[in-house]
Amino acid sequence: MSYDALVISAHPDDAESQMGGTLAKLSDQGLHMLLVDLTDGEPTEFADAGVRAHQADEAARILGVERLTLGLQDRFLADAMGTRLQLAHLIREHHPRWVYGTGEAYVHPDHAAMVGLTRAAVFLARLGQWERVQGGEQLANQEPWIVERLFFPHCKMEPPWSEFAFAVDVSEVYERKRQALAAYHSIFRVKDDRLLALYEAEDHYYGRMLGVAHAEIYRSAAPLLVETPAVFRPAPHG
Amino acid sequence: MSYDALVISAHPDDAESQMGGTLAKLSDQGLHMLLVDLTDGEPTEFADAGVRAHQADEAARILGVERLTLGLQDRFLADAMGTRLQLAHLIREHHPRWVYGTGEAYVHPDHAAMVGLTRAAVFLARLGQWERVQGGEQLANQEPWIVERLFFPHCKMEPPWSEFAFAVDVSEVYERKRQALAAYHSIFRVKDDRLLALYEAEDHYYGRMLGVAHAEIYRSAAPLLVETPAVFRPAPHG
Amino acid sequence: MSYDALVISAHPDDAESQMGGTLAKLSDQGLHMLLVDLTDGEPTEFADAGVRAHQADEAARILGVERLTLGLQDRFLADAMGTRLQLAHLIREHHPRWVYGTGEAYVHPDHAAMVGLTRAAVFLARLGQWERVQGGEQLANQEPWIVERLFFPHCKMEPPWSEFAFAVDVSEVYERKRQALAAYHSIFRVKDDRLLALYEAEDHYYGRMLGVAHAEIYRSAAPLLVETPAVFRPAPHG
Amino acid sequence: MSYDALVISAHPDDAESQMGGTLAKLSDQGLHMLLVDLTDGEPTEFADAGVRAHQADEAARILGVERLTLGLQDRFLADAMGTRLQLAHLIREHHPRWVYGTGEAYVHPDHAAMVGLTRAAVFLARLGQWERVQGGEQLANQEPWIVERLFFPHCKMEPPWSEFAFAVDVSEVYERKRQALAAYHSIFRVKDDRLLALYEAEDHYYGRMLGVAHAEIYRSAAPLLVETPAVFRPAPHG
Amino acid sequence: MSYDALVISAHPDDAESQMGGTLAKLSDQGLHMLLVDLTDGEPTEFADAGVRAHQADEAARILGVERLTLGLQDRFLADAMGTRLQLAHLIREHHPRWVYGTGEAYVHPDHAAMVGLTRAAVFLARLGQWERVQGGEQLANQEPWIVERLFFPHCKMEPPWSEFAFAVDVSEVYERKRQALAAYHSIFRVKDDRLLALYEAEDHYYGRMLGVAHAEIYRSAAPLLVETPAVFRPAPHG
Amino acid sequence: MSYDALVISAHPDDAESQMGGTLAKLSDQGLHMLLVDLTDGEPTEFADAGVRAHQADEAARILGVERLTLGLQDRFLADAMGTRLQLAHLIREHHPRWVYGTGEAYVHPDHAAMVGLTRAAVFLARLGQWERVQGGEQLANQEPWIVERLFFPHCKMEPPWSEFAFAVDVSEVYERKRQALAAYHSIFRVKDDRLLALYEAEDHYYGRMLGVAHAEIYRSAAPLLVETPAVFRPAPHG
Repeated sequence: MSYDALVISAHPDDAESQMGGTLAKLSDQGLHMLLVDLTDGEPTEFADAGVRAHQADEAARILGVERLTLGLQDRFLADAMGTRLQLAHLIREHHPRWVYGTGEAYVHPDHAAMVGLTRAAVFLARLGQWERVQGGEQLANQEPWIVERLFFPHCKMEPPWSEFAFAVDVSEVYERKRQALAAYHSIFRVKDDRLLALYEAEDHYYGRMLGVAHAEIYRSAAPLLVETPAVFRPAPHG
Repeated sequence: MSYDALVISAHPDDAESQMGGTLAKLSDQGLHMLLVDLTDGEPTEFADAGVRAHQADEAARILGVERLTLGLQDRFLADAMGTRLQLAHLIREHHPRWVYGTGEAYVHPDHAAMVGLTRAAVFLARLGQWERVQGGEQLANQEPWIVERLFFPHCKMEPPWSEFAFAVDVSEVYERKRQALAAYHSIFRVKDDRLLALYEAEDHYYGRMLGVAHAEIYRSAAPLLVETPAVFRPAPHG
Repeated sequence: MSYDALVISAHPDDAESQMGGTLAKLSDQGLHMLLVDLTDGEPTEFADAGVRAHQADEAARILGVERLTLGLQDRFLADAMGTRLQLAHLIREHHPRWVYGTGEAYVHPDHAAMVGLTRAAVFLARLGQWERVQGGEQLANQEPWIVERLFFPHCKMEPPWSEFAFAVDVSEVYERKRQALAAYHSIFRVKDDRLLALYEAEDHYYGRMLGVAHAEIYRSAAPLLVETPAVFRPAPHG
Repeated sequence: MSYDALVISAHPDDAESQMGGTLAKLSDQGLHMLLVDLTDGEPTEFADAGVRAHQADEAARILGVERLTLGLQDRFLADAMGTRLQLAHLIREHHPRWVYGTGEAYVHPDHAAMVGLTRAAVFLARLGQWERVQGGEQLANQEPWIVERLFFPHCKMEPPWSEFAFAVDVSEVYERKRQALAAYHSIFRVKDDRLLALYEAEDHYYGRMLGVAHAEIYRSAAPLLVETPAVFRPAPHG
Repeated sequence: MSYDALVISAHPDDAESQMGGTLAKLSDQGLHMLLVDLTDGEPTEFADAGVRAHQADEAARILGVERLTLGLQDRFLADAMGTRLQLAHLIREHHPRWVYGTGEAYVHPDHAAMVGLTRAAVFLARLGQWERVQGGEQLANQEPWIVERLFFPHCKMEPPWSEFAFAVDVSEVYERKRQALAAYHSIFRVKDDRLLALYEAEDHYYGRMLGVAHAEIYRSAAPLLVETPAVFRPAPHG
Repeated sequence: MSYDALVISAHPDDAESQMGGTLAKLSDQGLHMLLVDLTDGEPTEFADAGVRAHQADEAARILGVERLTLGLQDRFLADAMGTRLQLAHLIREHHPRWVYGTGEAYVHPDHAAMVGLTRAAVFLARLGQWERVQGGEQLANQEPWIVERLFFPHCKMEPPWSEFAFAVDVSEVYERKRQALAAYHSIFRVKDDRLLALYEAEDHYYGRMLGVAHAEIYRSAAPLLVETPAVFRPAPHG
């Protein structure tokens, strides 16, 4: 099946916290998006095994996206060749125009592996001749697929980005983002609400800076190219 | 009279070399643009006084834009309060949604003054109450004007930008840019053609990097804000 | 008279928005601080002339600091020699251990002049022999004064700082900061509350990032030197 | 047993050269510190096997710290999952408030692995539920431990840091650092004394820059947070 | 056998596109250079297996260099310990004064592994006592070798470098570089000529910027040291 | 008269401390160099008026260079148009292949003006037609002069440069540099020797890092261009 975008994350709730507003917005516009979680986020501290999966499904439903879990072990992610190929396989299967993956990160070691994985997956997905590569068999029966753009949302455990490629205004759909995060009630309500407060503070701060209520920020794998500078929304001081 | 964009430059031919393709493209789309040259570019080495003004008019005609010269002395530009106010006055007079001014520059001292001047002019133009400011009289009888975006094209005498906000694909109108630059035949043909070769090499290089024939690159005074990441054109490797 | 710290700003309300929490906190600890406003912030859009001065006095009273206005023209600040000397004179008069001045800024041209002014003032204040310098007479009858540290708070109109020297936890006194800003009711209530919302969003965001409710961030003129790394408060993830 | 700080290094003599002055100072203040060497630094060129271990013990004794060797192979360090867990286990065992690990490094491949290892170890040490993670058994019987701060001293084989988080004045204890390094006489005296000269040159240079005789510099995993800016020592020019 | 320089690349044609002009120039000066390709670049899309090897030999002949292939799998390169040792072994075997390896890269995952590999190989090659290291046997019978300089040419799939250590003027030998690249006719002619156009655009752009026709740019593993600043060629504006 | 190099500084002793070793070395090679001090460094704290001028002459004699003072007021330097023209005039008069001027600096306000002044002077010196520019008369009777390279030595009051263009090995002539600095005995001996200690610490540190006893470091106005990478001296770890 085809999706307009693949969002590759280490854990359930990563995509929601980093770009839940953008997901809600694009979903409302009719785009089909697939969240790919490399792990199931287990073990998590305040819920029995399996609870988080139900929460993740609920969050996906709220945002209007679909979700897939690859089943790697939370806490142990690395930029491994097998995972690169697995992701490239998914890209070739689903034909996304856009891929999103957690931006450069240092705090959580799982997040630190993400930029390398998604960059490699996008690159490998466009290559042919996999039948001639030992170890590349899983890609051999698929057509190459060229992703148009790879973007990296900001991980909210990381320091602020003074420079980022662009922000997306998510003010109108922000309540949906709140609901999607609230679906993970065992993480955010029981454990502590420091994280939820931080998440919203960040979106509010970047939004206010650009004259809107809430915004989500992104870096880009390649420099941005536009048809015209008129695509950019006004900034409060030009 | 109103213009969609004001392009503020130190010398005639700056706007053409930095963003002549974008000008041709926007002009074809029906936008009205005014080039504001702080100086007339005199003295120039291989032409009599006044020749360059005719060349500048011809270049503007080719690009479909209008042109105004403020008459400051070439070689002596500085980020002076009077010039800031003069530019703010022009902005309030012409109501541009966008202002463009030469990006951060070190080689030519005239260019080095440009970012400070245009940033200040955009800021001052949005303020009211000038009748209460001694020295601000020229702005007192104008309404405040809020510019939506201030962008900075790359000066081609400067080192490359490894990071820039966005590029504009100007492949289809590139011949028009060549013609506009060729209008300055006393500068580029007589003196030496090193500059023309450098100008096109840069546009070609950034274009090729992004999968098109020619592109012009920009920085932005404020972070970019978009409605959706779908506004960005594909990049060769995502 | 001696002060422990001088806080040099372009306009009344700059010190409050940038470091009002730090001011309240240090004032509670018994430090004496003098706010030096280079301009009186006039004209301001929603108040008669003179109203802002009363507001500024009220804000200073709330924060427990004193205030002085130099009477330069708002909107026209520049890094001028005369202003450098005027500030150096104030430093020699008041013997502050610390000087604070608005950090690197681009949006408001008045703010853009501040780092150069405060750096130069701190440097000139420590020099002797002014009686031998034509134009330096106002410093001739004062003893040199060596400032221990020059710090730069973040201007809230500017993009975020991904790197800064340190943050100060101002959670406990934040209500005082709110009150001090509220004293400027003609600016923040009438005109629009976008600014107030942005100010608090920033303090909240940097605070949450570091595990507290509100924080104010600073850069430093010179690298930081400490007796022991134990002076630093914990961070949520180390 | 509990330690106030764990200092994680690739080789014996890394901790001494990078932060030996800080160790001596903190030890004099009564703090208990454990040096964790990932390798025993063998083979070393001018001593028989085992000699270096004795030197390392002597250096630790001089600095007033304890020392532990994990027995990985010098020259072959990598940011491996097993080593991350081994270090997390040590952190949970010893409850340090502070962890130190060699800062970003490129010259020696063993050093290049250190930032990733220490960041991951600090993160993993704070997580619970390891009994539910296959491969995480060694952490299952320990309580989670939250490290307050992770700092990175500068590796002296690397280019200078123009930006660092803070420096520690180690002038008064510098002779102790010299003695600790001299304990490694087979490395520094026989082989060549270029390294020792470089080590002291660096400490002297950063010290002089900040107005003291010797200083050691650090980066920080998270932005610094302080109670008050008064914790910082004076700089020569503010 | 001894070589003056080793050029370590992921694929055949990497060395040619990144620094083919420098190779031609140095070869003309009588230097002996060995290209070390980690992979054979197979599978490639528009040629049968083995064709590319012939092309690579032809390109080497044109540039006057020799060539060696290590036989790792294209698309699967990583910064692995075994490859580090294999490269260190080659360095000890061939005694190069200079080593070159693809500079920091993100687009192609094979390229992303190169800086780590070459840095480590150069470091490990200078160490002795390998007979005492389990797993280091292949280096045990070789003398240590100290490489004078490690340089990193710019990969042409990457964004421009606004800062680089130095450029080499390759204008006079540029036709040879074109011929060497043309030897890979199955890659560049059949597939698409976007790459060839990009390669030349880059060399032309950096050249023009420095006043020559074509230049190749480099970063350096260590800061540059010169006998005199007179070694640098003039720049158009100083 | 012609000089091979002009070294433009704010104060006597700036050139000596920043690049005295390079001056001694180039002078020994037969190059003719002129030090241009914008001010006479008066008033200075521990000497009567005029003493410093004698010291400066003595230092120049020791280094084998000539010296000229422009007579601007110490402490009041700015990047003024008149000074730009005065320096351009000197460049056109003395035909230097190389110009040196203090690198980017923030601590001393006089130093902060230097990069702008020297960049502008080099640019203006190459222009013709000054007889047609009101205010440019002093350049009208001189031929244009194109400087080959503009380099910026590091000011020793500033933080270290982690990145610089190149270092010059000055080990063999370092005693001459010490003597030249010692000529300013009223500054360095009486006042305090912190500065002298800092100066030598810096040269020693950068030298040691590159495997020599003392080195002086430089930035460059334009990217470096070389005939061959063989011009660079070895680094300790490649």
